[in-house]
Amino acid sequence: MTRASLSAAPKTVRVDLGDRSYDILIGPGLIATAAGEIAGRLKGRRMAVITDEHVAPLYLEPLMASLKEKGIEAVSLVLPAGEKTKSFEHLIPVCEAILGARIERNDAVIALGGGVIGDLTGFAAGIARRGSRFIQIPTSLLAQVDSSVGGKTGINSPHGKNLIGVFHQPDLVLADTDVLDTLSPREFRAGYAEVAKYGLIDKPDFFAWLEKNWQAVFAGGEARIEAIAISCQAKADVVAADERENGRRALLNLGHTFGHALEAATQYDGRRLVHGEGVAIGMVLAHQFSARMNLASPDDATRVETHLKAVGLPTRMNDIPGTLPPAEKLMDAIAQDKKVKGGKLTFILTRGIGQSFVADDVPANEVLRFLEEKHPG
Amino acid sequence: MTRASLSAAPKTVRVDLGDRSYDILIGPGLIATAAGEIAGRLKGRRMAVITDEHVAPLYLEPLMASLKEKGIEAVSLVLPAGEKTKSFEHLIPVCEAILGARIERNDAVIALGGGVIGDLTGFAAGIARRGSRFIQIPTSLLAQVDSSVGGKTGINSPHGKNLIGVFHQPDLVLADTDVLDTLSPREFRAGYAEVAKYGLIDKPDFFAWLEKNWQAVFAGGEARIEAIAISCQAKADVVAADERENGRRALLNLGHTFGHALEAATQYDGRRLVHGEGVAIGMVLAHQFSARMNLASPDDATRVETHLKAVGLPTRMNDIPGTLPPAEKLMDAIAQDKKVKGGKLTFILTRGIGQSFVADDVPANEVLRFLEEKHPG
Repeated sequence: MTRASLSAAPKTVRVDLGDRSYDILIGPGLIATAAGEIAGRLKGRRMAVITDEHVAPLYLEPLMASLKEKGIEAVSLVLPAGEKTKSFEHLIPVCEAILGARIERNDAVIALGGGVIGDLTGFAAGIARRGSRFIQIPTSLLAQVDSSVGGKTGINSPHGKNLIGVFHQPDLVLADTDVLDTLSPREFRAGYAEVAKYGLIDKPDFFAWLEKNWQAVFAGGEARIEAIAISCQAKADVVAADERENGRRALLNLGHTFGHALEAATQYDGRRLVHGEGVAIGMVLAHQFSARMNLASPDDATRVETHLKAVGLPTRMNDIPGTLPPAEKLMDAIAQDKKVKGGKLTFILTRGIGQSFVADDVPANEVLRFLEEKHPG
Repeated sequence: MTRASLSAAPKTVRVDLGDRSYDILIGPGLIATAAGEIAGRLKGRRMAVITDEHVAPLYLEPLMASLKEKGIEAVSLVLPAGEKTKSFEHLIPVCEAILGARIERNDAVIALGGGVIGDLTGFAAGIARRGSRFIQIPTSLLAQVDSSVGGKTGINSPHGKNLIGVFHQPDLVLADTDVLDTLSPREFRAGYAEVAKYGLIDKPDFFAWLEKNWQAVFAGGEARIEAIAISCQAKADVVAADERENGRRALLNLGHTFGHALEAATQYDGRRLVHGEGVAIGMVLAHQFSARMNLASPDDATRVETHLKAVGLPTRMNDIPGTLPPAEKLMDAIAQDKKVKGGKLTFILTRGIGQSFVADDVPANEVLRFLEEKHPG
């Protein structure tokens, strides 16, 4: 498929942020043609490519060859793979590599990898020379539909995940859909949870389309490209309306409050639960809780659960292997994530499929009772 | 004087940056009354105070006492003094201290110190939770009139000074003019070079006023407050017109291209040359070079030199103790600071006192010949 699809023009999603606007190109074969897209948009002829040891053997060479062919002088830095790389320990050599490569005003830093590489590299680009140009080449579905849109960058701290970083928008995102064929089914599914999320936030027709067409999305080809483009557009629209997360952007956290609590409860052990799986369970819980609060029909919760289960995602807390801490401990994790004010929490709830909203007066004790019911013991 | 002056209302300079606008208060006794000013403007009741071992013994206790009295819970972190503190090594514990203090949306990070503490702390505040509120209490004249206005923050890299950082505007600046009485005369003079700079950029009347009143400015009292307020206003005006340094803001670099080259040539050894002294010599050189290029009268260069010499600042390269490298080496340092394009440099030149402008076509070989003349051997 790669060869034939090289001729197809990629889909373009524009992220509209005034003088920080940028394009997301989505399509097959984009890594091999990356330099052409870059050279057509940026004047600089020096780049620093940051990637990890999993991605490098697959895609670094074709990317570097493409850059060289267009007369772009590039250096590369290969980091260890995994969440631990999002730390000051690795941020420092990335910054020094960028400065050492003399990346200047019209040059750029390129992140080639998943969310970890994107977040870390974007942060380094955001602080090197108080802001350097930045190109994302996301290599996971999650990174293509989520972290590569919106400009959030950062690293983890002993005090929590993503607590240190900046908002730094990329100048260009190249989402090569061919790379998704090398993802494990589990990793693809985890990214798919975020795709489904956009339907559940405010696109009921997209969710219905996914219910019908998810197999085609998983198989690759046009349906997959379409699903990624709609997801990027959905996130781009929210981000354009609320770049710094004061209001509407919070909707992107649908399923994430419960999801983060479950990730914390499993000590971020990816063997037990990865982020997208936590979000899948969290979205089901958010719909069930909304039904319990008489905001939405229980049928909607059932519909969400049925679809996510069909694609192979976990949908219940006891789908997670191993023992979970008791409900009160999960509640502590939620309270740490979201501040509790006068016994009330801010939560993303829903009035039905595609009708999510920010609820800022959710009684903490109702959440606890709900968790106790869903996870007795 | 402190006691009597406590009753005087501080002068206020407003830095106009849309929703990032803030006030600079200038006057005596502001550290002791800091908490009142803070509590009147910010809702948060948690603060983290970052300072250094030189400043802490003088001002940390009164500041902490003032905060406590207003019901503000504050932690403090005391760092080593000196330029070496502007490094990742010290940035990390500052970030962790901020996160550990649970500084949230309405709380703030306070920098109590000179330029090093301000730049480092501002950077940490800019990246902790992707941007935390930030209050500057600058304790040197240089910091009061220069680094505390404009939002540039950062640390040094082995590749150069200030190469890693963010633009992060403070929410409030408290310039307590009493603290200047504890500066060494040399440190005060170095800060004064930047005060004079504002006159030379575009305020000929201010420069003339300084020529007449500099002794009163050095002595303290109203003239000093006035000079600081005019300086802050001057910088605020430039920054408001050009927050991200694309055009007009470059004027603030008057004297800095030569100055930086001299700082580099003396290996940033503060015993030989401190920043403001480099700027003083640099401003004289910029006026002399402008005269040589027939842009300005040589009388203006003489007037600048006479004034800076009168206050006790160095004005010539051979005022610097020790041996300087030859002119070509200085030229290399200039070329590294500013890019040379087709043999041309961008430089801040002048048509006379208070008539500076950005010249982007200065022949590099003319600069070299000028340096050879001024510094033979």
